Amino acid sequence: MIKKYRIGNPIPTDSVIEEMEITAESIPYFIRDDDAKSLNIHMLKNDKVYGLGETVRGINKRGHIYTGFNTDDGLHTEDKRSLYASQNFFIISSDVRKLGVYVDTPGRVTFDIGFSKKDELLIVFEDFDADIYLIEGDTLTGVVKEFRHIIGRSYIPPRWAFGYGQSRWGYRTADEIREVADEYDKAGIPLDMIYLDIDYMEDFKDFTVSDEKFPNFKEFVNEMKDRGIHLVPIIDAGIKIEEGYDVYEEGVENGYFCKKENGDDLVAAVWPGRVHFPDFLNDEAREWFGDKYKVLLDLGIDGFWNDMNEPAIFYTEDHLKEVFDRIDDYKDMELNIYSYFDFKELVASIGNNESDYRRFYHEYKGQKIRHDKVHNLYGFNMTRAAGEAFERLCPDRRILMFSRSSYIGMHRYGGVWCGDNMSWWSHLLLNVRQMPALNMCGFLYSGADIGGFAADVTEDLLLRWTAFGIFTPLFRNHSAFNTRRQEMYQFESKDVFKNLVELRYALLPYIYSEFMKAALEYDMLFKPLAFEYDDDRSLEIEDQLLYGESIMIAPVYEQNVTGRHVYLPEKMKMIRFRAYDDYDEEILEKGDHYLRADLNEVLVFIRKGHVLPLAKPGMRTTNVCSEDLIYLCFEAEPGSYNIRR
Amino acid sequence: MIKKYRIGNPIPTDSVIEEMEITAESIPYFIRDDDAKSLNIHMLKNDKVYGLGETVRGINKRGHIYTGFNTDDGLHTEDKRSLYASQNFFIISSDVRKLGVYVDTPGRVTFDIGFSKKDELLIVFEDFDADIYLIEGDTLTGVVKEFRHIIGRSYIPPRWAFGYGQSRWGYRTADEIREVADEYDKAGIPLDMIYLDIDYMEDFKDFTVSDEKFPNFKEFVNEMKDRGIHLVPIIDAGIKIEEGYDVYEEGVENGYFCKKENGDDLVAAVWPGRVHFPDFLNDEAREWFGDKYKVLLDLGIDGFWNDMNEPAIFYTEDHLKEVFDRIDDYKDMELNIYSYFDFKELVASIGNNESDYRRFYHEYKGQKIRHDKVHNLYGFNMTRAAGEAFERLCPDRRILMFSRSSYIGMHRYGGVWCGDNMSWWSHLLLNVRQMPALNMCGFLYSGADIGGFAADVTEDLLLRWTAFGIFTPLFRNHSAFNTRRQEMYQFESKDVFKNLVELRYALLPYIYSEFMKAALEYDMLFKPLAFEYDDDRSLEIEDQLLYGESIMIAPVYEQNVTGRHVYLPEKMKMIRFRAYDDYDEEILEKGDHYLRADLNEVLVFIRKGHVLPLAKPGMRTTNVCSEDLIYLCFEAEPGSYNIRR
Repeated sequence: MIKKYRIGNPIPTDSVIEEMEITAESIPYFIRDDDAKSLNIHMLKNDKVYGLGETVRGINKRGHIYTGFNTDDGLHTEDKRSLYASQNFFIISSDVRKLGVYVDTPGRVTFDIGFSKKDELLIVFEDFDADIYLIEGDTLTGVVKEFRHIIGRSYIPPRWAFGYGQSRWGYRTADEIREVADEYDKAGIPLDMIYLDIDYMEDFKDFTVSDEKFPNFKEFVNEMKDRGIHLVPIIDAGIKIEEGYDVYEEGVENGYFCKKENGDDLVAAVWPGRVHFPDFLNDEAREWFGDKYKVLLDLGIDGFWNDMNEPAIFYTEDHLKEVFDRIDDYKDMELNIYSYFDFKELVASIGNNESDYRRFYHEYKGQKIRHDKVHNLYGFNMTRAAGEAFERLCPDRRILMFSRSSYIGMHRYGGVWCGDNMSWWSHLLLNVRQMPALNMCGFLYSGADIGGFAADVTEDLLLRWTAFGIFTPLFRNHSAFNTRRQEMYQFESKDVFKNLVELRYALLPYIYSEFMKAALEYDMLFKPLAFEYDDDRSLEIEDQLLYGESIMIAPVYEQNVTGRHVYLPEKMKMIRFRAYDDYDEEILEKGDHYLRADLNEVLVFIRKGHVLPLAKPGMRTTNVCSEDLIYLCFEAEPGSYNIRR
Repeated sequence: MIKKYRIGNPIPTDSVIEEMEITAESIPYFIRDDDAKSLNIHMLKNDKVYGLGETVRGINKRGHIYTGFNTDDGLHTEDKRSLYASQNFFIISSDVRKLGVYVDTPGRVTFDIGFSKKDELLIVFEDFDADIYLIEGDTLTGVVKEFRHIIGRSYIPPRWAFGYGQSRWGYRTADEIREVADEYDKAGIPLDMIYLDIDYMEDFKDFTVSDEKFPNFKEFVNEMKDRGIHLVPIIDAGIKIEEGYDVYEEGVENGYFCKKENGDDLVAAVWPGRVHFPDFLNDEAREWFGDKYKVLLDLGIDGFWNDMNEPAIFYTEDHLKEVFDRIDDYKDMELNIYSYFDFKELVASIGNNESDYRRFYHEYKGQKIRHDKVHNLYGFNMTRAAGEAFERLCPDRRILMFSRSSYIGMHRYGGVWCGDNMSWWSHLLLNVRQMPALNMCGFLYSGADIGGFAADVTEDLLLRWTAFGIFTPLFRNHSAFNTRRQEMYQFESKDVFKNLVELRYALLPYIYSEFMKAALEYDMLFKPLAFEYDDDRSLEIEDQLLYGESIMIAPVYEQNVTGRHVYLPEKMKMIRFRAYDDYDEEILEKGDHYLRADLNEVLVFIRKGHVLPLAKPGMRTTNVCSEDLIYLCFEAEPGSYNIRR
């Protein structure tokens, strides 16, 4: 049962699509404090808290403060409170209750989940204006499904987007891209996508392609498409200020950019230097910006990723000026314990400075609204601009689209990747733990940068991360220009990488089917064990996941080990894959097992009464046929599995 | 068997005290490359690498690059290559060989342990001058003992230093300190030490005490000592430049400070603003600085911690001037993708800038040597200054001393703490993994900041960290001024903290005995399982440790769990402590177990044929008597345990 409550006078977010009446009574279970602008709920000792989408730490969110305020911060350490997304849906769960809570507010909101007081979940609002949806259900999955119904169906990408993709900030020319494709082909490692990071553009201008680096881009796109490889360019939020650049000029002329209080277009800076930010919250501006994707669609592009849309800000012109003025004060000072850190912070904080989010305004639903009040909707509406445009421009095709920043509602228009993570073992585990939380909030097409974006990967980390990544719908290896090269063919164990990616392609009929079921039935693809088993052990497992209806996975996320502990909540059939056509099968009893899982092995556990179909892989998703499948079964008939095509 | 080899013409470090002949042959096992200034050794697939002291990541060091170059960096993430210490001793170990390697070189050296190539351990030197000691033995412990013999006996602190200590950057007055003592007494939580961070000084000047904050310090020290509480002040490396300040004036007058090439005293800055750095490598200066500790000894102080001795540098005067000159260039520039990051880095990198380590010189053993060439000896010799002074000033007493920066050799003069860690679960695990590596290198009196220095702790993290901390010889809760208060009495579960610290005090006879055995027999207190068991599983266990001769420990280091997996390499008796006098006993078979370990429980495993003595705890270590012990035994007689007093 789902009920909607209202606090104050919230700015609509369009995250919920179902019209619902506002319940007149006060919000049950919670203590409301208007002075503190807070809601407070007591947690039972054994309550677990699930959800909040893309955040740090565990599957059970107890023991930390999370802040819904989209933030461009590449250092996803345990103490961080905000990442790129605000997905303010969570479930408080114990054997006595399952209570789903969606806090729909577009500005800053903080969730203190047993941090300050062990048994208290405290929600503190910057503005006490929000719609609160409470969902009471008998099962966790039931609560999720009810929530997902009111926020609408999740984005479904084209089938080829379930292939493997290679990316790197640093690919500069068509020849470099060709080389990546050639090397993958040479190594026999399947590949469907190569991503174009910011360097494909002319001076980092959206919807341009550098003629110098890509002399005939349209031909090149076709050449790659003939090879079965999709090029997927990045689009950034900021529009370069440059006379003669059409997007800039149209935006200025039509008033489509975010404005300061005095009516001037805000001048900020990102990659190209000085930029304006399109006002994606303005319907007209959003339509205009969305239409711009046509430039690239017409060149044969059929997939995009939207970036820097928190929005990331290197600096605003106004703030930078203030900073330079203040720097002079420090010049003749003896910098000591106080002034030294002030000075360093002054410069360090010119990037993504929160004060800058109070310097500009949107035209949103007929109102002029200061950005910080609707901050979390910016990336959502950038991606909505694209999604709505694709519906207008090519209603019969699915276009690949995913975004860095997001808010619930954006899940209808695109997926997400988990932003600029690091080549850390702990970020592989974080990836494992983020997936079910993203799914709860509607984000099904998602994944992290396999191998890690920043810092230098090791071969074993990339192998283990790939062995998990073969299950994430978005399966992309991405890294930063100043890190060790991270393409699979750069490493000694090319054959193992080949086997892993081939296994992904062999699993494609299953992955695609289960993704489609999750999307169409408002379900999750990745689930914590607690969503289907209620024994005490299952409730605490945070490094194994149920994946679709048939299997449980147990990724290895530690260096220098050749096995791991796995808890089986019931009898299952283990498949230890070395390749799609080379594996051991073993029936394992309910309980604890220490299982060998060497660098070339992937453990999959088939649940009782279930079937795992396997296809013969190919070098492209188009070569993977959903006919002639092999069915791995555990106390089930092959025919009982329902393939979606 | 131990052999010494020489490359080039190394600067002596005094880390090895045993006179050894240099072997004339070339270094076996290694491929030497004079052009690349490197040594290279092939690793077998199942070789494990142990050692390197205080570094990030696992017990088995394979899979990362570590750089011996002492660094003041508080963000100990997985990708970091240097922390505060350089402890360049490691062991390559498999069933076919145990090869200990000590790389004795005071400048920068890099250990690429299977990072670039999986099966290659590559040592790259900045200066190809080093003494290399190779130790071949039959057992890991045998190799460690041989190494430890040549570097000399480890520092032994006074017995009270095995008590519990409370610290915080931010205690400003005698009354605040009294309050800490009162609150601990009120909560019934034992306490032996309160630490004084930088605020006790007058304007951050070493060997001064602020009269304003501590009106009669000597009386206060005595008052606390009468309560059984030792005050332990911090000493920093930098000496404030201030007319009339005796340490400054004497240093200048006698030429005891580090000098620039032109002979001027280097002007750097740390807490007090502008400082000079004492030249601890100069014998006379070291003696002079050591004698300064007498100022505080005379006030009743009997313990110190040496900090900022990498040395940490906020900036040097010369470099800061260059930075400010360059800032002007950016003022009128349009900061874009290139210049923006350059500008931010320009300011960010004024702290601990490596170029500053090339700006000053030491008088070391009769030679003028540029600092970077002997960088890793600086903290060592600061602590040596103190240790040598204590031998002169109070030869019959043990003085507590530990340091942030270190090099092998310093272990004879003091312990270490693991620097500015974070309130992260992963840093609790890091603490577990660092202990045996520190022990290998001779650092027995060591520990990390319990609960984490930076970031906000949660009660459950502090509980779990304390449950491990009760085993570390240095058992100190420390945190930064801008974090959540971290004293145990600030939290709801005071009774659990009381039980945990009481358990520490009950274990004191065992901890002290095992520490003394380790020190006197050149052994380790903490050992990886691989040091005593050679089954495949034991070789990979990185979250359980052998602790002294009798027990194995298995700390819990994850949030929101009530148990953990424990592997028993042989049959053991588990003690599940809730308090020193409230516990379950259970005999467990060799193999894997999932064991309950709730927030109020500590798991200890008594090895077959061994005894764990327990005393009745008291509020101070002096109240803990090594008579009338209770003996927990597993197939052993109480009398078989040898107590050291």
